[in-house]
Amino acid sequence: MTSETRAAVPAEQQAREAEITRQVLDSFGDCTDPRLREVLKSLVRHLHAFVREVRLTEDEWSKGIDFLTRAGHITHDRRQEFILLSDVLGASMQTVAVNNQAYGDATEATVFGPFFVEENPEIENGGDIAFGAAGEPCWVEGTVTDSTGKPVPGARIEVWEADEDGFYDTQYGDDRTAARAHLFTGADGGYRFWGLTPTPYPIPHDGPVGELLAATGRSPMRASHLHFMVSAPGLRTLVTHIFVKGDELLDHDAVFGVKESLVKEFRRQRPDTPAPDGRDLEGRAWSRVGFDIVLAPDGA
Amino acid sequence: MTSETRAAVPAEQQAREAEITRQVLDSFGDCTDPRLREVLKSLVRHLHAFVREVRLTEDEWSKGIDFLTRAGHITHDRRQEFILLSDVLGASMQTVAVNNQAYGDATEATVFGPFFVEENPEIENGGDIAFGAAGEPCWVEGTVTDSTGKPVPGARIEVWEADEDGFYDTQYGDDRTAARAHLFTGADGGYRFWGLTPTPYPIPHDGPVGELLAATGRSPMRASHLHFMVSAPGLRTLVTHIFVKGDELLDHDAVFGVKESLVKEFRRQRPDTPAPDGRDLEGRAWSRVGFDIVLAPDGA
Ligand SMILES: [Fe+2]
Ligand SMILES: [Fe+2]
Repeated sequence: MTSETRAAVPAEQQAREAEITRQVLDSFGDCTDPRLREVLKSLVRHLHAFVREVRLTEDEWSKGIDFLTRAGHITHDRRQEFILLSDVLGASMQTVAVNNQAYGDATEATVFGPFFVEENPEIENGGDIAFGAAGEPCWVEGTVTDSTGKPVPGARIEVWEADEDGFYDTQYGDDRTAARAHLFTGADGGYRFWGLTPTPYPIPHDGPVGELLAATGRSPMRASHLHFMVSAPGLRTLVTHIFVKGDELLDHDAVFGVKESLVKEFRRQRPDTPAPDGRDLEGRAWSRVGFDIVLAPDGA
Repeated sequence: MTSETRAAVPAEQQAREAEITRQVLDSFGDCTDPRLREVLKSLVRHLHAFVREVRLTEDEWSKGIDFLTRAGHITHDRRQEFILLSDVLGASMQTVAVNNQAYGDATEATVFGPFFVEENPEIENGGDIAFGAAGEPCWVEGTVTDSTGKPVPGARIEVWEADEDGFYDTQYGDDRTAARAHLFTGADGGYRFWGLTPTPYPIPHDGPVGELLAATGRSPMRASHLHFMVSAPGLRTLVTHIFVKGDELLDHDAVFGVKESLVKEFRRQRPDTPAPDGRDLEGRAWSRVGFDIVLAPDGA
């Protein structure tokens, strides 16, 4: 609402509305957990300010309750509508930003997403994460260093991505594990593996979040990306993606995950170009990308 | 967080965080519904400001997602955890305040609550709403007038309340209808009926909202009350309660519904006091209360 509309609320009425907020804030006075108290008081202040600012109607309030109810009912073990909601409102990315303050030239973080799986196969440095997932082979290589430039041997690198049809293994109805794995950097901090050239995919949009995107003229598509989680003792765990330079979705990523520093050139290779590890690509085109990772110190 | 802590966030980092909010606000640029755009933009601004202000940790974010998920899963046709959440955070009452601006001496509104039922029996003016619900009889009487003092004949009055065990009829596993009814004011705007002397009851607190109340040292109890919804052509529909003077819960109502103007004296009557309508109270004590209702003009 404009400041003009706000000014139209009489001072006495404003005082009455502020009094409700005061009562709610006071109700947390007996909360013995200071952090919980701080978080809830801030939440209440912002929630009430929102209601007042837009002069939320009772019908809109009901629609909000209905939206949350439907989000709850579509959510199950393999579908998390509340995470999608947080993602499309940028709350996930804002949380990532708050928790991963920039540190020197440390690699930037981005959203975790709902598709990570704790249990996934280990591959050798130079191995293949596809395990049968369809897609164009992509050679990924780089180094992991700390922010002083020192190589980090034995860093754990988790990678996961969608197949060429835009689906993660967990989205198929079976128990397949594909296009996900972990590996460790070598003594020189180097890593390399075969993945798939990333392709764009929509976030699940057959639920209330999809309706919200449709109603606001927004696309459910995510810019093409490959997920990384990189960890090593004494260093801040990095959760990030790399994106594909030239992807037209870079400016319209549904979850606001794109950072310019994470956009990489995936160089297309002709079928007859020899692979770096001598692999027989059976006449297929392939791509390659470099991604050097810098980890901030733990607690930075 | 204190302004000191906020100041500790470097300006560059603050700019990075603000940039995310800007991107999300921009994403609604193609939304063709101006009201939806306004509401969502305000929601995003406040949601992001909350995340930044408390420096929400990723673990806290996960707890929030889990809370919403559990609230969704406990919600069904007869249990609405998201309304309870809105209630205990005062968002319901703030919405009521915004939508029912004070108008002259019009009776104040309060929360609707989850226990209203559209289909309920009609009683004669002077009839009994109990239909078998247990509790001390209470004679309720008053007038309905507009804000110029003119009586409103034929105004529809819906009333509903908990029984002496603190339960609404809908909370029993059967199909009973009790302690709810509607009636109409007479030619003089007057109304009267037998209800039950209100007793305190807890909001359902065996779910995530109950956990939140417990974790913050808050009680789930509502101050004793009797619900009213009053409507008449050309006048603003009033949703309100009356509360019981002297109830020790008046200052700690779990949903912040109490307004001083709605606290009424329920005068206890000895068993041998004759009832106003000559009813035989079979030796029971009873109470009586007056509640004159003033309706604001429609659209006020
Ligand atoms: Fe993804
Ligand atoms: Fe109630």
